[in-house]
Amino acid sequence: MDIKSYLKKQAELINSHIERLIPSGTPEKLFDAMAYSLKAGGKRIRPVLILESAKAVGKEDVEEIMDIAVASEFIHTYSLIHDDLPAMDDDDLRRGKPTCHKVYGEAIAILAGDGLQSYAFELISKNNRLPSDKLLKVIYLLAHGTGIYGMVGGQAADILHEKENSFDDIHFIHTHKTAKFIQSCCQIGAVLAGASQEEEKALKNYGLYIGLAFQIQDDILDEIGDEEKLGKKTKKDREKNKLTYPAVYGLENSKKMAQEYVEKAVNEIKILRSPEILIQIAQYIINREV
Amino acid sequence: MDIKSYLKKQAELINSHIERLIPSGTPEKLFDAMAYSLKAGGKRIRPVLILESAKAVGKEDVEEIMDIAVASEFIHTYSLIHDDLPAMDDDDLRRGKPTCHKVYGEAIAILAGDGLQSYAFELISKNNRLPSDKLLKVIYLLAHGTGIYGMVGGQAADILHEKENSFDDIHFIHTHKTAKFIQSCCQIGAVLAGASQEEEKALKNYGLYIGLAFQIQDDILDEIGDEEKLGKKTKKDREKNKLTYPAVYGLENSKKMAQEYVEKAVNEIKILRSPEILIQIAQYIINREV
Repeated sequence: MDIKSYLKKQAELINSHIERLIPSGTPEKLFDAMAYSLKAGGKRIRPVLILESAKAVGKEDVEEIMDIAVASEFIHTYSLIHDDLPAMDDDDLRRGKPTCHKVYGEAIAILAGDGLQSYAFELISKNNRLPSDKLLKVIYLLAHGTGIYGMVGGQAADILHEKENSFDDIHFIHTHKTAKFIQSCCQIGAVLAGASQEEEKALKNYGLYIGLAFQIQDDILDEIGDEEKLGKKTKKDREKNKLTYPAVYGLENSKKMAQEYVEKAVNEIKILRSPEILIQIAQYIINREV
Repeated sequence: MDIKSYLKKQAELINSHIERLIPSGTPEKLFDAMAYSLKAGGKRIRPVLILESAKAVGKEDVEEIMDIAVASEFIHTYSLIHDDLPAMDDDDLRRGKPTCHKVYGEAIAILAGDGLQSYAFELISKNNRLPSDKLLKVIYLLAHGTGIYGMVGGQAADILHEKENSFDDIHFIHTHKTAKFIQSCCQIGAVLAGASQEEEKALKNYGLYIGLAFQIQDDILDEIGDEEKLGKKTKKDREKNKLTYPAVYGLENSKKMAQEYVEKAVNEIKILRSPEILIQIAQYIINREV
């Protein structure tokens, strides 16, 4: 099976567990809004990276860490709902469908995002199959990678950026907005698999590098991608005067830089027991069309 | 010392620990926005309840649980920032000062709220003085009490309420929007103090009852409170057609119901080793003017 088909199959597996773990309750509209955004599809790359990182250091039974993987997608989904808000990126479409606030209104979209964040931590903290110290470290990595020193900080920098200082800014934004969360996912997989310090460090570095490559490829796809395949308008970043790699370094240099990050990532994980899938994921990240 | 002065002193203690724990970093504006809202004052009743609940079941050294207490205030502050947003309650003033989005803009206010939530969990999960199993339960209680089955659910219900079904709705809203978070704080104090199951249950029930009394008193103060003392406009709830106890049951009945909840709360904790302060807090809740 080629990596594209493999990732599709893994995404379907994640989707079935998301379905299992979607919370229900009152008020219905809040829960509907969360379910709507959770079911909107996507590559599920963060949960897949948690599972594949764990496998790469020898974990065979990933069933027991499935809830943790899903929790990472709950956090990712919350961030998408909030990013799409009128006060933020003001997007009407996400994966070819109306964004959460277009369907449920702004107030419920804000609360659905807030609720998905807290529910991710609720889901991890109520897990009774994994030891407390591992769960606590998972919570730390997730909160740190997606919070003020990670994703939230990067998103704020993205909104506030000053064009003048582009080279530093673009690296800060991409590292924080995207790479740190992906890094946390790879490290979470390592922790859950009981990896050695050396293995954990390799996966941590791998995560950072593929995270950067991933965001550069996102920028490139926004420039030259296929709107139909992507399920959203392209050239939005340019319209919004966003700081992107193609805008700062040009398209060809950006491709080269993404390639270099992938090589660095692959280099890091050669010491692992079974790095094959992760190597292919790294390469796929810059070859993908969606 | 009377309870009002005691609570003021405790709030000052909490404030000094908030100062110690306010995060700093880049982008500055995001961190400024969080600090601005954290420093805006307030009763700090949630952290105080964590500390006092722990003391009531015999915990003497509350220094080591101070970071957990502060984390609860980070969550409370995030909820205030988001509640004040134009798409939500649309408030310009909070505790006599311009609200976060009025000073920093909506996008940064949304992110400051998101970031305060994740940083609360980061703060708890990186604690290295308390055992992992206790920290994990604290995270569960906090996430559960403030998430979709607690505060976020209640806030959504408040926004979506249908006037027709007032009696059920008002109880649902107050229980979820306010009481469940306060309940979690009392239970967190119990867990951190190593309370017995019976003691934990007593504090859990106490928390629910004083939480309801607290919200009813908030509704009453919105009707008849002193704008200057409160640092905000009164009669806002009525203007916004909000479901409140005075609106549904009338002012006198509301006062009576708050009194009844306080009596129930006091009754629950009589079995504790040192319930005196918690009893006085319960009574203060319905006598307070701010």
